[in-house]
Amino acid sequence: MADHHAPNLPASSEGAVGGVDGTRERVVAAAMDEFARYGIAGARVDRIAKQARTSKERVYAHFRGKEALYAQTAARELGVIAQATQIDARDLPGYAGRLFDYFTSRPDHYRLISWGRLELTAGDGTSQDAIAGKVEQLRQAQRDGALDPTWDPFDVLALVNQIATTWSAQPEIAAAASEHSDDRSVAAQRAAVVRAVERLFPAAAPRP
Amino acid sequence: MADHHAPNLPASSEGAVGGVDGTRERVVAAAMDEFARYGIAGARVDRIAKQARTSKERVYAHFRGKEALYAQTAARELGVIAQATQIDARDLPGYAGRLFDYFTSRPDHYRLISWGRLELTAGDGTSQDAIAGKVEQLRQAQRDGALDPTWDPFDVLALVNQIATTWSAQPEIAAAASEHSDDRSVAAQRAAVVRAVERLFPAAAPRP
Repeated sequence: MADHHAPNLPASSEGAVGGVDGTRERVVAAAMDEFARYGIAGARVDRIAKQARTSKERVYAHFRGKEALYAQTAARELGVIAQATQIDARDLPGYAGRLFDYFTSRPDHYRLISWGRLELTAGDGTSQDAIAGKVEQLRQAQRDGALDPTWDPFDVLALVNQIATTWSAQPEIAAAASEHSDDRSVAAQRAAVVRAVERLFPAAAPRP
Repeated sequence: MADHHAPNLPASSEGAVGGVDGTRERVVAAAMDEFARYGIAGARVDRIAKQARTSKERVYAHFRGKEALYAQTAARELGVIAQATQIDARDLPGYAGRLFDYFTSRPDHYRLISWGRLELTAGDGTSQDAIAGKVEQLRQAQRDGALDPTWDPFDVLALVNQIATTWSAQPEIAAAASEHSDDRSVAAQRAAVVRAVERLFPAAAPRP
């Protein structure tokens, strides 16, 4: 999380009652909702300010601009996801299940990330450190004999992420399945995702 | 392709030199570029009209509005993709490779589809007939013993699509891999995608 600012960093420019930190936190929370719904180009800073009970000028005092606010919001969200889902390179099916659960119960969080992929240039640094950390864990599992070493760890990471978000990413197939399939419960979607990852990258036996 | 209008339908409202059909085609081609770049909310009909060498009014004479124009553009594109990649339920790794090739060489086409998933409500009908047709082919392969019948065919379709677009969908991991991996050529990306699908849904033996 290279650009992940701690949420409670003190800021030098303000010290009013209610507190800088509170304002900043409210702005990021409001930005989360706004960006998830409208994307970056479609987001309106005045709506964010209003929802955060502050002014547009105050938002710009904290964040250089709308893209910077998005970058901070997305970086924080990526940190929250990583914390909540905890990659385990020895049990990738379990990790895929946690990712599935996370995004299924929080469709707006998946949207937040997806807009950035469409609207920003890749490799802007926001998620590069987090990716490197996960890849290093996968490499270690390969060295430990817990994960098939014939896969490039970047492929492993990309495939697991991708499979875990199969249903978030393809609402049109989910809609078709819900009408025409025998069992399109969330549990059935989850089972398919975990089964696919298990087939590709089976969990290692527990450590002795 | 329920909503896929044939590109050369005659229209009753015009008959000028240059032809209605030519205008309509130029508008859809211009819309493809505009929607791929800016999404639906961000697209400007006046830019589309200018690129298509026509007027905004003429665009609205052909299409009810911006969303209808997007729907037609996306439906046409989905038809082109289906035609170009030809699902083969007996050889899903081969199909995944063709999808990979299609989207890798046409990143703007992947973007066009992705915006709709974010900006429109799923299950609006545009792609439901196409999905149903593919699922029926998968069911047939299952009946023929050419595809593992323990998978729900909707899961198969969703997983194959999803895996095939692993690298289009995650530019941030592609960027990290291109810096830190031994071989991040397109061929290596493609091989990983095909290998994953082969592991999940191996191609059937050729028909006798």
